Amino acid sequence: MAIHTDLTPSESADRLAIRELFDAYAHCADRRDAEGQKALFTTDTRFAVYMDGDRAEPTYVLEGREALTPVFDDLNRYDATTHFNGQSTVTIDGDRATGESYTIAHHVFSEEGSRKIMVASLRYLDTFTKLDERWYFAERKLILDWSETRSLTAPSAA
Amino acid sequence: MAIHTDLTPSESADRLAIRELFDAYAHCADRRDAEGQKALFTTDTRFAVYMDGDRAEPTYVLEGREALTPVFDDLNRYDATTHFNGQSTVTIDGDRATGESYTIAHHVFSEEGSRKIMVASLRYLDTFTKLDERWYFAERKLILDWSETRSLTAPSAA
Amino acid sequence: MAIHTDLTPSESADRLAIRELFDAYAHCADRRDAEGQKALFTTDTRFAVYMDGDRAEPTYVLEGREALTPVFDDLNRYDATTHFNGQSTVTIDGDRATGESYTIAHHVFSEEGSRKIMVASLRYLDTFTKLDERWYFAERKLILDWSETRSLTAPSAA
Repeated sequence: MAIHTDLTPSESADRLAIRELFDAYAHCADRRDAEGQKALFTTDTRFAVYMDGDRAEPTYVLEGREALTPVFDDLNRYDATTHFNGQSTVTIDGDRATGESYTIAHHVFSEEGSRKIMVASLRYLDTFTKLDERWYFAERKLILDWSETRSLTAPSAA
Repeated sequence: MAIHTDLTPSESADRLAIRELFDAYAHCADRRDAEGQKALFTTDTRFAVYMDGDRAEPTYVLEGREALTPVFDDLNRYDATTHFNGQSTVTIDGDRATGESYTIAHHVFSEEGSRKIMVASLRYLDTFTKLDERWYFAERKLILDWSETRSLTAPSAA
Repeated sequence: MAIHTDLTPSESADRLAIRELFDAYAHCADRRDAEGQKALFTTDTRFAVYMDGDRAEPTYVLEGREALTPVFDDLNRYDATTHFNGQSTVTIDGDRATGESYTIAHHVFSEEGSRKIMVASLRYLDTFTKLDERWYFAERKLILDWSETRSLTAPSAA
């Protein structure tokens, strides 16, 4: 934690914009706005996915904004998603920033006549960059800490 | 996302007040302070509930602050509730504002000797208004994206 | 809710620092940085745990920062934890502040060959103090509203 003796109107604006960037990712994902979601990234962005926590090498890496298309399109197979955002801790250094942000992503789907939910507990380690007054994801490391698939069928009364 | 070049002390205060309004709704719900919860709304508020996502017509609409009384009183049948708030994205235009806010509402109850939890994944599409230096909910659209009822009984060891 | 007519750069800095304190607690817990976690507390801190909601006497009370060591070390028995932070409502009065903050703490563990998760729905009632420009937890009341243990095994397809 840094000591913040004063938070200038300029830094406050940067912090708000970066938080809105984090939340816009969730909004675009949940509303299936793949183009809007891609526009949050720099054209030469790097998106690295760690499916087994952050101790190992990335499971896969996507290079460049266009490489994100199949990832975001894949959300269309769910009946509903909820990218629920928690804390986001950001350190700003001029036109660059880094942060750790928590998301629990809920994915509702149907399988063999049964309704289910897959829950993914994610942390994003991000690098942000400011270009022409606007903040973008320059790099995202997505870390899956744990996941769970449950039936959405109500338990019996007993 | 808007570009924020500077965040004035006045807008910062508005943003804090609107976030506190969103969180006060959860606090009052969870502490069963129905009068406090009602006081967060304008007297002529409109509260529309969408039980099947946001694609259809509202399931029902409540007109006016007093119409909220049975909704908030209904929380008393639960042993405990947790209105857990995530992201809240707000756009301010003078004394009006609009926003999208995420809540996962947890409701613990007992049924036939068994302890259960009903989880509701909610998005609120709100219109806020500022009256005499204070922000209120002028309109809430509550959208239920999905829900789940689970047993709170621990699984067997095997 | 207080009326905020203006949010000064100084109060904005205090609010950011207190939010970062809340989030640092989660980060240190999840990364198993017990020393970092302890350093967020005043040396004479008081940590009271209420395992049955906030209606009763505390289940136990820890006095002083060093008494927290076994609590934080206890996290090491989990394969992974996610302290997911929601809303945090804070009132500042000079170098003191109080707040209510929501956390859903997820604890993944293995038992008899099966992977499980224990979820604890927590509210923290905190008193913060500012010493030498830095904010600390002077007192934490941890209230467990409900908890749940689930199997992390996927349900069968049927």
